[in-house]
Amino acid sequence: MAGMTGISRPSLGTKVVFTMAADHGVTTEGVSAYPSEVTRQMVLNFATGGAAINVLARHVGAEVRVVDMGVASDESWPSCVVNRKVAAGTRNMAKDRAMTVEEARSCLEIGAELATQAVQNGAGAIAVGDMGIGNTTAASAITSVITGRTPAEVTGRGTGIDDSRLKLKISAIEKAIETNSPDASDGIDTLSKVGGFEIGGMAGVLLGAASSRVPVFLDGFVSSSAGLIAATICPLSVDFMIASHLSAEPGHKYILEHLRLVPLLDLNMRLGEGTGAALAFSVAEAACKIVAEMATFDSAGVSGVRGED
Amino acid sequence: MAGMTGISRPSLGTKVVFTMAADHGVTTEGVSAYPSEVTRQMVLNFATGGAAINVLARHVGAEVRVVDMGVASDESWPSCVVNRKVAAGTRNMAKDRAMTVEEARSCLEIGAELATQAVQNGAGAIAVGDMGIGNTTAASAITSVITGRTPAEVTGRGTGIDDSRLKLKISAIEKAIETNSPDASDGIDTLSKVGGFEIGGMAGVLLGAASSRVPVFLDGFVSSSAGLIAATICPLSVDFMIASHLSAEPGHKYILEHLRLVPLLDLNMRLGEGTGAALAFSVAEAACKIVAEMATFDSAGVSGVRGED
Repeated sequence: MAGMTGISRPSLGTKVVFTMAADHGVTTEGVSAYPSEVTRQMVLNFATGGAAINVLARHVGAEVRVVDMGVASDESWPSCVVNRKVAAGTRNMAKDRAMTVEEARSCLEIGAELATQAVQNGAGAIAVGDMGIGNTTAASAITSVITGRTPAEVTGRGTGIDDSRLKLKISAIEKAIETNSPDASDGIDTLSKVGGFEIGGMAGVLLGAASSRVPVFLDGFVSSSAGLIAATICPLSVDFMIASHLSAEPGHKYILEHLRLVPLLDLNMRLGEGTGAALAFSVAEAACKIVAEMATFDSAGVSGVRGED
Repeated sequence: MAGMTGISRPSLGTKVVFTMAADHGVTTEGVSAYPSEVTRQMVLNFATGGAAINVLARHVGAEVRVVDMGVASDESWPSCVVNRKVAAGTRNMAKDRAMTVEEARSCLEIGAELATQAVQNGAGAIAVGDMGIGNTTAASAITSVITGRTPAEVTGRGTGIDDSRLKLKISAIEKAIETNSPDASDGIDTLSKVGGFEIGGMAGVLLGAASSRVPVFLDGFVSSSAGLIAATICPLSVDFMIASHLSAEPGHKYILEHLRLVPLLDLNMRLGEGTGAALAFSVAEAACKIVAEMATFDSAGVSGVRGED
């Protein structure tokens, strides 16, 4: 963190979690155990403070900013929800590209703008988290494209699907990649063909935080797939990313290997929302406090290493 | 933690770290890079709030109780240090038993009494930490005796000794075990022959916390060797132990395997004092808050898993 910030005794300052929500057209392929309306319901749950990310953010003293990047609903949100909806859910990537190139660019710009504003308002550490029924399907597709692993290797059970749905999910991802032929070296092309609005928004936050030299914490599998997109657009941005935890989703370890990041925690979490990143905030803050607050051996009058005699 | 406490929605309540200090006669064998007076100096550092455990305990909202179990000094401590000195350091275990059986019993009784008092005063989670120049030598000896591994397998570099001191350290442990023939099935015999006063005190805290049904957090290698002593005296006590982290000391993984405990954190820490346990307090508290504070799907109006159709 000293290297990221250029400050020898860094502190986290205000800690902000961006929890970004969107819907996914690919859910019509039957890839999730939950219906799409859960995305909308969970945004309301975030707004009233009842979700896991609210509990864990309170625990570590972080703020949660809930952003509608593309929820398939015309709900008028409570004022605490930031409405930056790019469109009401992506198209079904198994049949068509998920979004236009212009929409992909919009996601990145919105995320970068939100991160930059947060830094201007005092944020010294930022985390990205996600909510979106169907978004492990998009994350698995991105992971397969950019890491070169097969869909079967990187795809897991998300919210807890059974064997038959897992087969449908892998098959939908294979179709999406075959139909769209995303260019693995082009993050915007990959995002627009097999991504999601919240994934694009998180990639934008990662780029914005990196450009501000502020440490940015990946959460689990979906937010780390945004890390792949950001890394493809600007490889240097990875130097500002901290891997909070290793998700139980099988594709996550391949992303972290690809980005050469080592996760701080390994607690079999798999929820998203920014929950693992919130816990990692606390560990990183502890590290900063050790540097800032501990007495030195000199100042505490402690004897040094004895000479080799 | 629900199982330990018998409460379905447990909370940690007041969190107390017992940081127990003592000196070790085996340091005359040249097993440590630091002189024995560092134990005394670090007790004063704990008392003034400048040590790592003070910083991390503040970070997680825990109290530190510093206990002199056997520091080789007649210093009159600041009032915040609990003076329960059993003797001014152990004897050199490479030549004689480290302490008498009566002294070993005293350590256990003192630790159990302190834990029980803390629970009576509201502690809902207790951690054990250690300070004592030479105490990884005692911990390695205990680990070798109780797990059946050789001294060479379980012995590490402690505060950072070089190859020649590591040889001296392993050789001192081999001599201590050969000279004393501790009975691996008898925790009091093992403690008295190759242990330390702070290790005995921590074993007592573990037994006292378990008897009060209060979760007790092991820290690193030395405190976990106290876990081996406690487990030998009362196997059921292990059900109340939480392994906070995996220390970089090589013997620690063998202790945790023996106790069948899985560490929460793996951050290459190796300081002792209770530092890893303080961080684990925060993770455990987060888990309790998830159970206590999260909305259910019902209460938040979130749709359930869709039927298999």
